[in-house]
Amino acid sequence: MRLLLWMGLVAAAASAQVKYDDILAGPGANWLTYAGSYSGQRHSSLNQINTATAKNLTPKWVYHVPDAKKLEAVPVVYDGILYVTNSNQLHALDARTGRKIWVYRDEQAEGSRVNRGPAILGDKVYFVTTDCHLVALHRKTGAVLWHKKYADTKDGYLATMAPFAVKDKIIVGMGGGDSGARGFLKALSAETGQEFWTLWTVPAKGEPGAETWSKDVTLRWGGAATWLSGTFDPALNLLYWTTGNPWPDFYGGDRLGANLYSDSLIAVDVDSGKLKWHFQFTPHDTHDWDAQSWPVLLDIPWDGPPRKVVVHPNRNGFFYVLDRVTGEFLRATQFADKVDWAKGIDAKGVPILNPDKDPTPGGTRACPAVRGAANWMSPSYNPATGLFYLPTLEQCDIYSSSAKEPKPMTGFAGTGGEQIPAEPGQMFLRAIDPRTGKRVWQYPMTGPATAWAGTVSTAGGVVLFGDDAGHLVAADAKTGKHLWHFGTSQNITASPITYLVDGKQYVTICSATHVFTFGLFTPAE
Amino acid sequence: MRLLLWMGLVAAAASAQVKYDDILAGPGANWLTYAGSYSGQRHSSLNQINTATAKNLTPKWVYHVPDAKKLEAVPVVYDGILYVTNSNQLHALDARTGRKIWVYRDEQAEGSRVNRGPAILGDKVYFVTTDCHLVALHRKTGAVLWHKKYADTKDGYLATMAPFAVKDKIIVGMGGGDSGARGFLKALSAETGQEFWTLWTVPAKGEPGAETWSKDVTLRWGGAATWLSGTFDPALNLLYWTTGNPWPDFYGGDRLGANLYSDSLIAVDVDSGKLKWHFQFTPHDTHDWDAQSWPVLLDIPWDGPPRKVVVHPNRNGFFYVLDRVTGEFLRATQFADKVDWAKGIDAKGVPILNPDKDPTPGGTRACPAVRGAANWMSPSYNPATGLFYLPTLEQCDIYSSSAKEPKPMTGFAGTGGEQIPAEPGQMFLRAIDPRTGKRVWQYPMTGPATAWAGTVSTAGGVVLFGDDAGHLVAADAKTGKHLWHFGTSQNITASPITYLVDGKQYVTICSATHVFTFGLFTPAE
Repeated sequence: MRLLLWMGLVAAAASAQVKYDDILAGPGANWLTYAGSYSGQRHSSLNQINTATAKNLTPKWVYHVPDAKKLEAVPVVYDGILYVTNSNQLHALDARTGRKIWVYRDEQAEGSRVNRGPAILGDKVYFVTTDCHLVALHRKTGAVLWHKKYADTKDGYLATMAPFAVKDKIIVGMGGGDSGARGFLKALSAETGQEFWTLWTVPAKGEPGAETWSKDVTLRWGGAATWLSGTFDPALNLLYWTTGNPWPDFYGGDRLGANLYSDSLIAVDVDSGKLKWHFQFTPHDTHDWDAQSWPVLLDIPWDGPPRKVVVHPNRNGFFYVLDRVTGEFLRATQFADKVDWAKGIDAKGVPILNPDKDPTPGGTRACPAVRGAANWMSPSYNPATGLFYLPTLEQCDIYSSSAKEPKPMTGFAGTGGEQIPAEPGQMFLRAIDPRTGKRVWQYPMTGPATAWAGTVSTAGGVVLFGDDAGHLVAADAKTGKHLWHFGTSQNITASPITYLVDGKQYVTICSATHVFTFGLFTPAE
Repeated sequence: MRLLLWMGLVAAAASAQVKYDDILAGPGANWLTYAGSYSGQRHSSLNQINTATAKNLTPKWVYHVPDAKKLEAVPVVYDGILYVTNSNQLHALDARTGRKIWVYRDEQAEGSRVNRGPAILGDKVYFVTTDCHLVALHRKTGAVLWHKKYADTKDGYLATMAPFAVKDKIIVGMGGGDSGARGFLKALSAETGQEFWTLWTVPAKGEPGAETWSKDVTLRWGGAATWLSGTFDPALNLLYWTTGNPWPDFYGGDRLGANLYSDSLIAVDVDSGKLKWHFQFTPHDTHDWDAQSWPVLLDIPWDGPPRKVVVHPNRNGFFYVLDRVTGEFLRATQFADKVDWAKGIDAKGVPILNPDKDPTPGGTRACPAVRGAANWMSPSYNPATGLFYLPTLEQCDIYSSSAKEPKPMTGFAGTGGEQIPAEPGQMFLRAIDPRTGKRVWQYPMTGPATAWAGTVSTAGGVVLFGDDAGHLVAADAKTGKHLWHFGTSQNITASPITYLVDGKQYVTICSATHVFTFGLFTPAE
């Protein structure tokens, strides 16, 4: 009897551990990392929800997050428990019913911000507080195991990102680049929170890349924030991370040069934290074009045999394909119709600028809009269709600049991108063939283009995405044909996930104040 | 061509008119008045949702009411449009999809309060503002037709009730009795808002009933508020309305006597506004036992032949049956187990008091709790089962009083009913046979007993109700057996309605911030 009990405990303890290999296996029954898999493809092997059955989707449960106004979290799901975050809080819910299991609130954290979700590894679930603490909680009980402060708000730092669990590490980044905070990536021990390494995304004096900043800019500042999660290639042992705009945002006069590693994709050895290579999409950015859209890892035919590439739809309107081993630029194609800040991208990957599209004190109309043609809401990729599903905004803005001396940790009055009232934006879900860069189909959205949501792809041949009218939509992954939708009645600024509960496929997406979960209709027994 | 168009317009204009006869017909395709019918039975003739199909209920749409925190509205539905209110706003929604058609916001109204719903008659939809304006809007366009101020906030008045449309009149009541405002009912013209009559629920000096107040109480005050809608017997031409507690609430020393017509049911001729009869449930109330639960009109066998009765589950724990022609007391039975303020009700309908249960400066434990064993959330009655469905709270409180001189329009510090931490409440849905007063079944709820929702009965043999855990529940009307539920994830303090859209039966209930609408699952074509 005692032996049996003891064996039962061991089994329970084993199943309670999320292993690195579990995350490596990619999304199936569980959804274990922000983008579903390390590749960032957000493609699930589940196929119960398919082109034939999607019409039978219906809400299974909703969960109201108290105090929430604008949920941006992508939950993780493990072992029937769904973990979702809001500003300084993490909610553990029964994924079958939405019933609350436990809630952790950090009452000490300063201020209130969006939060993009948790990470999970071992027996711990992790999230970041507004004031840059990485918090590790016991995933079953919500007990606080430790708190690790990894940056200081008095240096302009804040945090909104989903921590990224890789091997024995939790990778964290920072926000605050728009008010000057100097970007970094840090690897902390998943077990203890102790720091393994820091990589600065703005080089210090004397370091490679420092020559791309004019001498007036002190490198205590500079932006190039790392406010979203990244992706990872286990064979190459490389993290892929994108960086935000340089600071000051719209006025480039104080930071002549390319301003590395702002608006870049960086490849970083996950164990050493060393920069392996970098590629800068928008040198000397004056349009606030953070590179914060996902670097998605694909193995696709390229002039014959498959090649390891990383693709990246940039806020600047171009869809980039790079060799992910070397960082070699392979191609950039325009994925938005409204692009005029550059005439194109040259053979080396450098934008061919339209010089009259720079922000001016009086204002300059330029496209895409400051929100970008793409942004941080997740695209997805379906290996069966070979298509990349990208939420896209077609819009132009008036860009203005000011030559006032920039002050870190303050905004810039009178500068930025401003919407043109007579030119409302139009959103689309676009399917792009990454082998050619060509658009295969598009799904026009019908909302006000003020919200923005992501996508998830499934082996059922369905792409699920939020539209700008607050609907979760299921479309045929091959053709873009509408299959089903449900209106959440509020803006969606998050991305859907899919997983199994009791052997049945569910889809969850956060709307402004509620977590909505859908499944195929089955009459109660 | 011109003739056809003209005929089409006439047909449209005719269908756009809600007639008194339509409301008289009771709830079927539409839901035209707060309680569904003038009888207050909240029993729908629809039967698509029945004991066999209820398990196939699923959310059809949700609608977020911006700024809402605690929706208490019961919508009305006509011609495919659902009208729902929140504080100083009325939303017209497409009942098929929840899509917003128009929203009216009264920006001038003072403060923010709950609102219990609209009324509809002719081409107008009506609601009350926080500051006692009756607003008439065109039901198709939301255009303001008129605003009629019918009470003044500087006299302590406020309004939260659903206006009651009868014949050519809109009946309105008032809130504010807890801070002393003198109760009234008013009949305004449905067409113009002009006043037909006012009936004061606290008599003036020299009027019948004035002798039930000690001379120290000026009758500019007194309470006996009329903050909920009423019911109506078209054959008798009588309105049935319940009144609130006398003021000051918990300290009776300044208002010796029975304090008519507080805590009463009054029968009022709808054309003249004359009081036909009254029955007082709780003379000289010191427990804040507003009579605000529905007076429901039934024709049931009583010692043989059917009798026209009115039944009323009172906050004080007793279920009353009165002759609704004469007001004759027929019987009161205890419907809550926890009742100790009175030992029973005598043959004349007068409570047999337990004198040691009066509030004291030091506090007295008494039952029911100050929230009442029943309250304003709607019960319902199914003529086929002969059962009355009553949400019930089992709870006791500590009642305290203070002999400080009361000041109108201010609260009383240190008096009232206070929850006993070690004795949480327990809620039930109870089915009572009004012919015997006996409990036939009960459905125990599992929530924290802090919210409170109403019920709707259907010819499908199903009773639908909100529980105290935020679920909409369908139960077998005969047995109380659970058939289905869906969790809205927030407190429900409103009552469900049911109606047809495109020939299919829907159920709608307001949760805290959202309107939820359910229907039977049918796969998309």
